[in-house]
Amino acid sequence: MNEYIKSLKDQLKLNVSIDKSIDFNWKYTKIAGPCSVEGPEIVDIAKKIKSLGANAFRAGAYKPCTYPILKKTNGWKEGLREEGLELLKQVKKETNLPIVTEVMDASMIDTVGEVADVFQIGTRNFQNYTLLDALGKCNTPVLLKRGTWGTIDEILGACERILIRGNRNIAICLRGVVGMPSYRHVFPSIRWAPDLMMIPALKELTNIPIIYDPSHSTGYRNFVKPIAKAAIAAGADGWIIECHPNPDQSISDAAQAIDYHTLNEIINE
Amino acid sequence: MNEYIKSLKDQLKLNVSIDKSIDFNWKYTKIAGPCSVEGPEIVDIAKKIKSLGANAFRAGAYKPCTYPILKKTNGWKEGLREEGLELLKQVKKETNLPIVTEVMDASMIDTVGEVADVFQIGTRNFQNYTLLDALGKCNTPVLLKRGTWGTIDEILGACERILIRGNRNIAICLRGVVGMPSYRHVFPSIRWAPDLMMIPALKELTNIPIIYDPSHSTGYRNFVKPIAKAAIAAGADGWIIECHPNPDQSISDAAQAIDYHTLNEIINE
Amino acid sequence: MNEYIKSLKDQLKLNVSIDKSIDFNWKYTKIAGPCSVEGPEIVDIAKKIKSLGANAFRAGAYKPCTYPILKKTNGWKEGLREEGLELLKQVKKETNLPIVTEVMDASMIDTVGEVADVFQIGTRNFQNYTLLDALGKCNTPVLLKRGTWGTIDEILGACERILIRGNRNIAICLRGVVGMPSYRHVFPSIRWAPDLMMIPALKELTNIPIIYDPSHSTGYRNFVKPIAKAAIAAGADGWIIECHPNPDQSISDAAQAIDYHTLNEIINE
Amino acid sequence: MNEYIKSLKDQLKLNVSIDKSIDFNWKYTKIAGPCSVEGPEIVDIAKKIKSLGANAFRAGAYKPCTYPILKKTNGWKEGLREEGLELLKQVKKETNLPIVTEVMDASMIDTVGEVADVFQIGTRNFQNYTLLDALGKCNTPVLLKRGTWGTIDEILGACERILIRGNRNIAICLRGVVGMPSYRHVFPSIRWAPDLMMIPALKELTNIPIIYDPSHSTGYRNFVKPIAKAAIAAGADGWIIECHPNPDQSISDAAQAIDYHTLNEIINE
Repeated sequence: MNEYIKSLKDQLKLNVSIDKSIDFNWKYTKIAGPCSVEGPEIVDIAKKIKSLGANAFRAGAYKPCTYPILKKTNGWKEGLREEGLELLKQVKKETNLPIVTEVMDASMIDTVGEVADVFQIGTRNFQNYTLLDALGKCNTPVLLKRGTWGTIDEILGACERILIRGNRNIAICLRGVVGMPSYRHVFPSIRWAPDLMMIPALKELTNIPIIYDPSHSTGYRNFVKPIAKAAIAAGADGWIIECHPNPDQSISDAAQAIDYHTLNEIINE
Repeated sequence: MNEYIKSLKDQLKLNVSIDKSIDFNWKYTKIAGPCSVEGPEIVDIAKKIKSLGANAFRAGAYKPCTYPILKKTNGWKEGLREEGLELLKQVKKETNLPIVTEVMDASMIDTVGEVADVFQIGTRNFQNYTLLDALGKCNTPVLLKRGTWGTIDEILGACERILIRGNRNIAICLRGVVGMPSYRHVFPSIRWAPDLMMIPALKELTNIPIIYDPSHSTGYRNFVKPIAKAAIAAGADGWIIECHPNPDQSISDAAQAIDYHTLNEIINE
Repeated sequence: MNEYIKSLKDQLKLNVSIDKSIDFNWKYTKIAGPCSVEGPEIVDIAKKIKSLGANAFRAGAYKPCTYPILKKTNGWKEGLREEGLELLKQVKKETNLPIVTEVMDASMIDTVGEVADVFQIGTRNFQNYTLLDALGKCNTPVLLKRGTWGTIDEILGACERILIRGNRNIAICLRGVVGMPSYRHVFPSIRWAPDLMMIPALKELTNIPIIYDPSHSTGYRNFVKPIAKAAIAAGADGWIIECHPNPDQSISDAAQAIDYHTLNEIINE
Repeated sequence: MNEYIKSLKDQLKLNVSIDKSIDFNWKYTKIAGPCSVEGPEIVDIAKKIKSLGANAFRAGAYKPCTYPILKKTNGWKEGLREEGLELLKQVKKETNLPIVTEVMDASMIDTVGEVADVFQIGTRNFQNYTLLDALGKCNTPVLLKRGTWGTIDEILGACERILIRGNRNIAICLRGVVGMPSYRHVFPSIRWAPDLMMIPALKELTNIPIIYDPSHSTGYRNFVKPIAKAAIAAGADGWIIECHPNPDQSISDAAQAIDYHTLNEIINE
């Protein structure tokens, strides 16, 4: 075991998350879907995505935005919210795909839990300890998204909060991090840097499954496929990808959404 | 007005935070105190700090930690919590100093609000939107700490969430951000990089007051004084500093705590 | 074509490097060898590395170090220098492998050119314009290492300096860049962050071959194999890897050197 | 003494740069002038800048650019070069101001040395060891610019190369470094992040003088004054600033050039 991690363990600071004897039951995971639930067409989108080979469906009913005065397109206001959850229930009923969707606050766990098969913790809430502690007491699987600033210690510490409260069904979702501005001007939609080295780094310390998010790693659809393939080559257990029937028309995150054709290539090539 | 910001304003995305006609009533602010409320000696510490010239007192009753299995020194468990709030009430009664202390979750607003004159939003909760939205409906002043990853757009967007709900008594607390590892090995307690350029950058766009935190910018006590002076020279409206009677004995953040002597130099030199 | 790059091209700022009609004649490249030429055993090392399937040999005769007062082990003083070049000539004679080795200054081109089949431009000299301009006038192939700070514009600009002077036989060597300190304490030998997204980004703009360096991307031998595989999955044309018979005994860069067994896995798995 | 630095010293890796007994003879330094020598009007510019209180003059005769196919404005081709040096001789004759100007390669030392009172090593050549070693054998003072990627170890190592060869008349020029993209979109000319903490960090380890460059730290003229003031408050020994009679008309680095009025405020406020 790594010396520094060993010292944390000896100080009883890290305990469960580096116990490789725990068997985490995530299998090779291919999660796809649009950034947000945008309307009733979500059901057909999910059917199509299932037909391409994805084995779980993602879409946000609650969609935190940087700016609070929101676009009103389609009645959408930081997500369709309760209406979005109803649509996700229909997706589940008609496709039987497990639903991965974000819960933004401890007070929403019951409501979102009526449809979510996997609770996603969003990047902004990576260290929202009230939320993490509450999800530690659930039985529902949790997909913890790395904050754009999260170091390896902070990732393990956040997992630990959930694990020690009893919920051992977690996976880490790696995504782009804050980094040097290598692409500015040339590819203006790129805001973060993928950090694929975190895959073998976490694998060396823990057996918590790792799901890679090439959409929020790249910010630009042309790079989603090569980075998805690279993540699997580096040892990731699966991926989560934003896919939209008309990527440019996505209400949120349009620049990074891929079309069905590309999703098909990623799954079946 | 800056073109990009103007375009946000024209899209009704940013509105209040760049309205320079609003009068924010923070004056030159000198906030000092230990990282955490550690015990009853907090009252004497506050008296001493007041005598040196500080005009507000800081100390955390709730103290989020990266690792969840906590040090038990002094009965302290991610802060003394409710017991810590009681001690802060005593500080207020005996020193009449305004109390600046962290609220970690919307559900704690009433409890913490019994003693807090200023609610501090911690770095980890910089984009905890449930918390921000709830504080927007309070009358209590809010000190919003920049996340270690926060861009200037994200800072303005977070302010906006609070302002548009009616609470206009806010200030931005700038602290260290994620950056290149310039000091690794040589100064191992340094984890973040100060970003003093954000002071004139925000001043160009808004008149929201800016309080600088040299403690969480440097991570090393020897650099707190020069960075505090630099922040004021660059235009900050005040600072917030971690000060402890025996810095090396601080339960949390020992490496960056300064002693009374240094605080005196910062205030009175 | 990307808008920003197009504008550079329209201003005649970038010209050759984005001309996809130029045929660059690098094939799938597997360059391996120790960081430095350490002594006569280099010949046997090269034979072994060839037997494992590498198709080019790397080793530095000149080895820039951060600290100028050098280790004297083995008579080594920022490399064996001229003596090292003689040993590389022997390697070439006995193995017939092309030699990839660093030239640190324009004044050394003739001397190093007696043995080098490929001139490597080291990271520190990524923007040493006197050196780049001089190599542009040679016929020898050039492997340009990205500076740890190099943006995509700066990479293309550096290539352009060489290309417009007539030498069109170049490849870009991508390596770790300055980034956030995600691994500090836990994996202390990690100094840089791999940037695998630069592979598809450059491929979108140019057909200059891309050789990936997983050794200087990771700084830690356990991560070299997964990152080498990820680079190929993301579209790299080849890699350059530091391999040593006794990695821990490497005079330079010991922490990132892999052994023969791992090199074999990377090539033949 | 810091433990890590002590270990370097004990291994004889760092020696001279941390010897506080050496007396470096730079005094409070105010270096100003345009980015490049643009033409004969440079003499009048220097007279004006002297009248405002600057005590040294800067202007590049050689001006490395990212893109090699150059602007031809004014006959300027990566600087006026030899013609620029002649103009600087005239400046020196008519104003008696010491001339600070860049030398880009060891082979140019004699030519540039005919006019330079201080050799500036540019950012791109921060670790051009042939150049550093050659300047170590001169008597002319050297202003070593930090590379945008330079850690504190690398800064001290680069100084050491010059110092151990005998030239003890050096100063470190701190400028912006690679960092997180906090200002993108909003202030598009900002490319780097100021790192003012490096001032007290270096002061703790060495008495080599520190000259701060607020122009290349900010990339935007409105922030030059507050950052210049902050640098002095943090302990810098002086500054070097880009100033132009018509900032927007500067051939190079227009966005960060300040006018005479602002220079006057910085010097005399």
